[in-house]
Amino acid sequence: MSDSLYSEIKEIAIRARKASLSLCSATTAEKNDALQSIARGIESNRKLLKEENEKDLAMAEEHGLSEAMVDRLRLTHERIDAMVKGLRQLIDLPDPAGAVLETKQRPNGLEISKVRVPIGVIGIIYESRPNVTIDCAGLCLKSGNASILRGGKEAIHSNLALVSIIAEALEESPLPDDAVQLIPTIEREALNHLLTLDEYVHCIIPRGGAGLIQFVAENSRVPVIKHYKGVCNLFVDANADLEMAEKIAVSSKCGRPGVCNAIENLVVESSIAEEFLPRVSKQLTEKGCELIADEKAGSILQDFPTRPASEQDFAEEFLDLRLAIKVVDSLEEAISFVNQYGSGHSDSIITNNKKRAEAFLKEVDASSVYWNASTRFTDGFEFGLGAEIGISTDRLHARGPMGLEELCTYKYLIIGNGQFK
Amino acid sequence: MSDSLYSEIKEIAIRARKASLSLCSATTAEKNDALQSIARGIESNRKLLKEENEKDLAMAEEHGLSEAMVDRLRLTHERIDAMVKGLRQLIDLPDPAGAVLETKQRPNGLEISKVRVPIGVIGIIYESRPNVTIDCAGLCLKSGNASILRGGKEAIHSNLALVSIIAEALEESPLPDDAVQLIPTIEREALNHLLTLDEYVHCIIPRGGAGLIQFVAENSRVPVIKHYKGVCNLFVDANADLEMAEKIAVSSKCGRPGVCNAIENLVVESSIAEEFLPRVSKQLTEKGCELIADEKAGSILQDFPTRPASEQDFAEEFLDLRLAIKVVDSLEEAISFVNQYGSGHSDSIITNNKKRAEAFLKEVDASSVYWNASTRFTDGFEFGLGAEIGISTDRLHARGPMGLEELCTYKYLIIGNGQFK
Repeated sequence: MSDSLYSEIKEIAIRARKASLSLCSATTAEKNDALQSIARGIESNRKLLKEENEKDLAMAEEHGLSEAMVDRLRLTHERIDAMVKGLRQLIDLPDPAGAVLETKQRPNGLEISKVRVPIGVIGIIYESRPNVTIDCAGLCLKSGNASILRGGKEAIHSNLALVSIIAEALEESPLPDDAVQLIPTIEREALNHLLTLDEYVHCIIPRGGAGLIQFVAENSRVPVIKHYKGVCNLFVDANADLEMAEKIAVSSKCGRPGVCNAIENLVVESSIAEEFLPRVSKQLTEKGCELIADEKAGSILQDFPTRPASEQDFAEEFLDLRLAIKVVDSLEEAISFVNQYGSGHSDSIITNNKKRAEAFLKEVDASSVYWNASTRFTDGFEFGLGAEIGISTDRLHARGPMGLEELCTYKYLIIGNGQFK
Repeated sequence: MSDSLYSEIKEIAIRARKASLSLCSATTAEKNDALQSIARGIESNRKLLKEENEKDLAMAEEHGLSEAMVDRLRLTHERIDAMVKGLRQLIDLPDPAGAVLETKQRPNGLEISKVRVPIGVIGIIYESRPNVTIDCAGLCLKSGNASILRGGKEAIHSNLALVSIIAEALEESPLPDDAVQLIPTIEREALNHLLTLDEYVHCIIPRGGAGLIQFVAENSRVPVIKHYKGVCNLFVDANADLEMAEKIAVSSKCGRPGVCNAIENLVVESSIAEEFLPRVSKQLTEKGCELIADEKAGSILQDFPTRPASEQDFAEEFLDLRLAIKVVDSLEEAISFVNQYGSGHSDSIITNNKKRAEAFLKEVDASSVYWNASTRFTDGFEFGLGAEIGISTDRLHARGPMGLEELCTYKYLIIGNGQFK
């Protein structure tokens, strides 16, 4: 049983590898045409998509999935529009592959160029949102990578329908039919098999909850780029403009608490805590935000409903209207708190003191470190990278927003006239 | 037992992580001074080094290690000189950390800079050569990374002596004492523990034989950059300058057959095979090279001693005076042969036809693809990168020669004046 499933997954991987070898010669126009016909295919198959999605929704209700889960699963007209719009945005973005990053002439006459090329075969592991199928397939296609998609079992009908639209578009195009493939089974073992196929698959990107990401990282022989949790910190320094700090603290917690670039910890220097904490807490509680305070913050905030913070609270990604508050006695303590409890995603200092800002920027070990701005800007579009496949919390290959260029690697091309040694 | 070993390894990792956080603020001068005093320490401790090395050599003989193994283990005066020279070369190389790779002003006024920074904590797993201890510690230190070194058990006395010299130099310097640490035990389990500590260790680089590299890749939860085998191919196209092809074929096999950028497969287009193969084979056999021929090549080379090639021969890294020969009927067949049997390290085409060369350069999927030159140039110094930690056969993060810049990652620094959303 498992043997035949293994063979099936291996076949998918071999076909993807073959497709990737011919995809690297595809022109930008060919890739854009394919994206365009996928977009048209989605537009003209709304009815089919809704029908197949209904099957998933019915199954979800039968299995008693949470309302939030069912909502993520639902393909509304707006979400279908957003997929189409996303594909058309990709068409407008420059082709990352083929760019010459560097050329040098060596003393022995060799001309060495470093050229950006697709990674090869990318496996995307995700959960319930069916729109991820189109977003990821599009990003991989535009960057010249073959993709193997493994969506959540709850969305299998929606995903199969979306991938059939992609398959039709690829069939009509000069691009290889196997440029985008979906693992067509919901068997759990299929994922385990995929993670062992490092001979054919070059990179795995898990997108989803902490459980999924940890499972993939622990079980994959294929290199993984993790898009892990965002425990983002906002540090309000003794020299901060408190009005600015207040606006940034409130907006970066309450604006959209469920996203990874929202803050989870508010770190305040003790000399301004008595002035700053009550005013920011007033606004936070008005917006329904629960306050989790360390001892010092708790004693300052006696007039507010707070609960005492445990060590674990400071390392948690709440993804909710909940904020942990820590009072520190110095910049050094703030930096070491951020490096200990943050997840290396995004952290910010609010201060008018340039020297202290520079120390924070240099010493905080995160993908994105801010001075006098909200962490909510960590995003491919905000950074000018265009569409993103996610925010990498890893350090190797891609760190922070991961766009089309980060879906590429490079190779060296060396031209000589007979050199040997 | 194993629990206390785990705690010991975890302690080492925690100290390395702490050291890496302060190393990122070290100045170039501080790092260079430390490298200089390690070099001086090695020079003035030759006697100690030789004595400790003798213990390893005696143990090796006792255990009946092969002569090649014992040779790799031996710290000769020349090898000690080479370590010192290597450290001084590192001092002269530019500091990779801190360089601003890109800056942009966004429409909302945010100034976003992408800055090169050390990766953090790097684990180096290697085998018997004690000089790797100094090479790798030096490269990591210069790039601002804390390193955890795990050498082969055969070299433990030599490695402990080398690391005690490093420790003395670090103690005198403002750099953290734990910037370089050696796993002080030869217990096998120590490696397994290290590979699970992804909370503190950011990258593992295995250097050694295929067995070691596979073990690390399969068991590590920490991201791995593999320096795997080099199955390099030389393709002699129908339009090749045969004299050039001959010189390159012979030198890139026989010059130094034991290195990863030497060729293992000679691929020849059928239309020139009858003219080219006998002349190149004459020279190869004169140099003692064994010829492993596919059917067509074998029938052309009836006057030479050849043995028939199996499919497995074409995928093997011989590291020896042995060459597999394959005759193909077209450029396409050559490219698909190279992509199937090569290891993605270095491949070359010899041709006077620009169009065919360009197709080969584009479609061959390897870290370094050559036109009219030997694959033997794949090397950090030859590429102008300076000292290298190895040649990555992976695609993510670093591909091909991996120097100081490739031992770094980047982070984004974002400066605002109160922006939020």
